[in-house]
Amino acid sequence: MEGFGNMDRKLIGVDLGGTTTKFAILTENGDIQQKWSIETTILDEGAHIVPNIIDSINHHIDLYKMDRSQFVGIGMGTPGTVDLEKGTVIGAYNLNWKTLQPVKKQIEEGTGIKFTLDNDANVAALGERWKGAGENGNDVVFVTLGTGVGGGIIADGHLLHGTAGAAGEIGHVTVEPNGYMCTCGKKGCLEQYASATGVVHVARDMAEEFSGSSKLKQLLDNGEEISSKITFDLAKEGDTLAKSVVDRVSYYLGLALANVGNTMNPSFIIIGGGVSAAGDFLLKQVESYFKQFTFPTVRNTTILKLAVLGNDAGVIGAASLAQRFI
Amino acid sequence: MEGFGNMDRKLIGVDLGGTTTKFAILTENGDIQQKWSIETTILDEGAHIVPNIIDSINHHIDLYKMDRSQFVGIGMGTPGTVDLEKGTVIGAYNLNWKTLQPVKKQIEEGTGIKFTLDNDANVAALGERWKGAGENGNDVVFVTLGTGVGGGIIADGHLLHGTAGAAGEIGHVTVEPNGYMCTCGKKGCLEQYASATGVVHVARDMAEEFSGSSKLKQLLDNGEEISSKITFDLAKEGDTLAKSVVDRVSYYLGLALANVGNTMNPSFIIIGGGVSAAGDFLLKQVESYFKQFTFPTVRNTTILKLAVLGNDAGVIGAASLAQRFI
Repeated sequence: MEGFGNMDRKLIGVDLGGTTTKFAILTENGDIQQKWSIETTILDEGAHIVPNIIDSINHHIDLYKMDRSQFVGIGMGTPGTVDLEKGTVIGAYNLNWKTLQPVKKQIEEGTGIKFTLDNDANVAALGERWKGAGENGNDVVFVTLGTGVGGGIIADGHLLHGTAGAAGEIGHVTVEPNGYMCTCGKKGCLEQYASATGVVHVARDMAEEFSGSSKLKQLLDNGEEISSKITFDLAKEGDTLAKSVVDRVSYYLGLALANVGNTMNPSFIIIGGGVSAAGDFLLKQVESYFKQFTFPTVRNTTILKLAVLGNDAGVIGAASLAQRFI
Repeated sequence: MEGFGNMDRKLIGVDLGGTTTKFAILTENGDIQQKWSIETTILDEGAHIVPNIIDSINHHIDLYKMDRSQFVGIGMGTPGTVDLEKGTVIGAYNLNWKTLQPVKKQIEEGTGIKFTLDNDANVAALGERWKGAGENGNDVVFVTLGTGVGGGIIADGHLLHGTAGAAGEIGHVTVEPNGYMCTCGKKGCLEQYASATGVVHVARDMAEEFSGSSKLKQLLDNGEEISSKITFDLAKEGDTLAKSVVDRVSYYLGLALANVGNTMNPSFIIIGGGVSAAGDFLLKQVESYFKQFTFPTVRNTTILKLAVLGNDAGVIGAASLAQRFI
């Protein structure tokens, strides 16, 4: 019975980031059995990255006394622009990868295991969809609020890439037609309001026109560094200015996600990334605007949720990519 | 050789509307071989609709001396809320269908041919995607500007429905957070600005604050009925107010479609429906805002186009639904 032989088959998920590379060995059901991480060495134009990944995988397979034939495949999430067919990456500047990297070829040769990859935001979306807040649904949208704002979309069970790989770029939805200039060259992108630096930008601007009593205002006036976290913490404590900042950020997030909802009617829109550490305090306020800006069917059937997998979303989603080899 | 036997297989497409029901017999490649239409009789709570469809199909199959076994299936686009699994329709008010209609069961029994259906906007999207401006692409969005604003989305080759069938409701994207009240109960829906009645609404409001010389202003001041068509025609002739109205409408359409582009990066976003009869004059202005509100990858790879199939989009898309029976 082939079914029995398959019971022990495993997936490997790799989450390649600018500072650390995370690894996990998972069952075919997506349960993490082993996980570890290594520092990402970006010296020499990132030439050590792939060899280090290969060594680390081989080392751990031997360490756990596993057999290469047990592994269905390796999936990886990476920054940069990915060619899904060829298994290459280009333009991952935080890895110093400026030229085309034949990642699939190198890792398959170095490990003897099939390999596939996608970009990091898509992979995190797949992870949260499969084993996290997405409840393995067919229509799930994931947005990550970190240094930037990224996202990934699963629609009718398929991860969307669009015609040029830009599907899911929710960070560049225009929420304020004459708003802040974005690094992408256009104005009013969600990323400029709802990323960690976006929240601080909103806080600085609102502080200039604020005249009441506020700890956040004091910090800014004293030239102290503020952060998205400080802003949310002060808002939770009732600071008037900080509350207004969170309200503004929630308005833009609520508007952008409402229109994603109005367009696609997913079962869940999941909010992850560092800024989402503000938790239910943020979620409730975003939800209020989301309900204001969605029409009834979507308001009643598309649910906003916080991500639940944290750092594991990447390795789990990456591993799910390898399921295509089953 | 089974391949030869299949060469003569046909599809039937039905486009059920509030005033006429259109029919076509198509090849498996989507070429229309015969088409006809009947009046839609909505008397007696729409009880005659399905029997009339059955009679018309049977009559034409006999008329063309065709054999039921030639037909792969019948697909239909319908107003109202569709249950895809059960093949039922409810709440199609322009058909007087207030209670659940077991359309699939009735038509399969009445014709002896397999039947499937979807809502009319989705079916038109499938038609334009397959044989029209969509060039049979995997990622195509269709928006129809008529009495209302509807839409349909094909993503990664799949027609999207979302968790409650509301995917593609681009008419309810919020384009003006404190804008016109919509029939859906929320403010600022695209439909309130870019439908035929929306254009007139914008014209009336802008006329109130307009003080220059304008034929459109004169018509309104004289209490004459104006239409979306009159507004566009006057704008083409250089009427100052009418030009401003078209600019405002194009701005909202450009913003909404840009954000659909930023989210999904389709190869084509196709604009159809009565208002799109304004043609390139409208398209160019929408495109200008679309480019302003999209980030570079989408700006360079997602193309706005006018629909090309006109009234045939419905029967062609409906027929494509029946391909699932192949």
